[in-house]
Amino acid sequence: MNQPIASVALEKAYRLLNHGPTVLVSASHDGVNDVMAAAWACALDFSPPKLTVVLDKMTKTRELIEQSGCFVIQVPTAAQLQLTYEVGNRSLHTDPDKLANCGVELFSFDDRPLPFVAGCSAWLACRLISESHNQQAHDLFIGEVTGAWSDTRVFKGGHWHFDSAEPALRSLHYIAGGQFYAIGESLKAKTGS
Amino acid sequence: MNQPIASVALEKAYRLLNHGPTVLVSASHDGVNDVMAAAWACALDFSPPKLTVVLDKMTKTRELIEQSGCFVIQVPTAAQLQLTYEVGNRSLHTDPDKLANCGVELFSFDDRPLPFVAGCSAWLACRLISESHNQQAHDLFIGEVTGAWSDTRVFKGGHWHFDSAEPALRSLHYIAGGQFYAIGESLKAKTGS
Repeated sequence: MNQPIASVALEKAYRLLNHGPTVLVSASHDGVNDVMAAAWACALDFSPPKLTVVLDKMTKTRELIEQSGCFVIQVPTAAQLQLTYEVGNRSLHTDPDKLANCGVELFSFDDRPLPFVAGCSAWLACRLISESHNQQAHDLFIGEVTGAWSDTRVFKGGHWHFDSAEPALRSLHYIAGGQFYAIGESLKAKTGS
Repeated sequence: MNQPIASVALEKAYRLLNHGPTVLVSASHDGVNDVMAAAWACALDFSPPKLTVVLDKMTKTRELIEQSGCFVIQVPTAAQLQLTYEVGNRSLHTDPDKLANCGVELFSFDDRPLPFVAGCSAWLACRLISESHNQQAHDLFIGEVTGAWSDTRVFKGGHWHFDSAEPALRSLHYIAGGQFYAIGESLKAKTGS
């Protein structure tokens, strides 16, 4: 772990997810860590920053979030293509060595009791806003973002720099059957008209 | 309007949104049409297919959806960069000619009483699943997808074909301040291990 990491101002944290990347969701409880992939994660509010993520009842990560009341949403990179696919297709229920088998390395930030996945481009520490109806009826979980960080090679000064960073740092956008797209070129609309 | 359009099987409709594009939201009520942009739209379920979209209380589109109980989520293309920015930054409340001023052309499908935006790459017709708490507390709207269509030059056979289609058909992924990213190259994980 020798990534250049800096904190992201909470009012700009939504930008880490605004372009719709597939994310990794991680949580920890009672010494058990799990990480899963989720294509269905989305910003929900600016201030305080909130997000939604859909978590199937079958996943161990969901159970850990319900128990601990907190989780991390992180943005994996193109270099983590296979890792992202594997954590989305193996279950801790049947594969106790899932994280090692998927090549996941965890680390800590700021003494927060949360498992962060090394090698990602951005991390959002979240506090679960418990809403029974959404969780039970829709598998929909709401988190308030309490801390955000980025790899400054690709997100700095409140902006992504995918065009100038190395392609291995691009975000992943899942479709189905192991097929992803990397994020592409920057396009700028005319503003202020 | 001479796009090659075909219907998309409902069980594959989630794939139209799975990579996290910024979308256009359109609705109609009592002869009034509006279209807005939304970066915070996300798939919610496979079967029946459902999605979430965050709609600010200031928008006329939200009012039309609450009145009519239905809306369209559509995926704009890189060729619609300026249109997407404009519909997201002008309001029908203050600009009665908003749609004309933004270059929006509407059309109909299958006699559905919904305003579809011409030139997009995919369209999802939705029925509002009314949930007062989510709408009031979170500006979060849930729709059940009742019909889906795509421009077959870029989505066909249940898959996006961004790599082989012309770049002008790529999806847009908004960040902030008029800056978008187009979707990029296809990456395939090893499956079936």
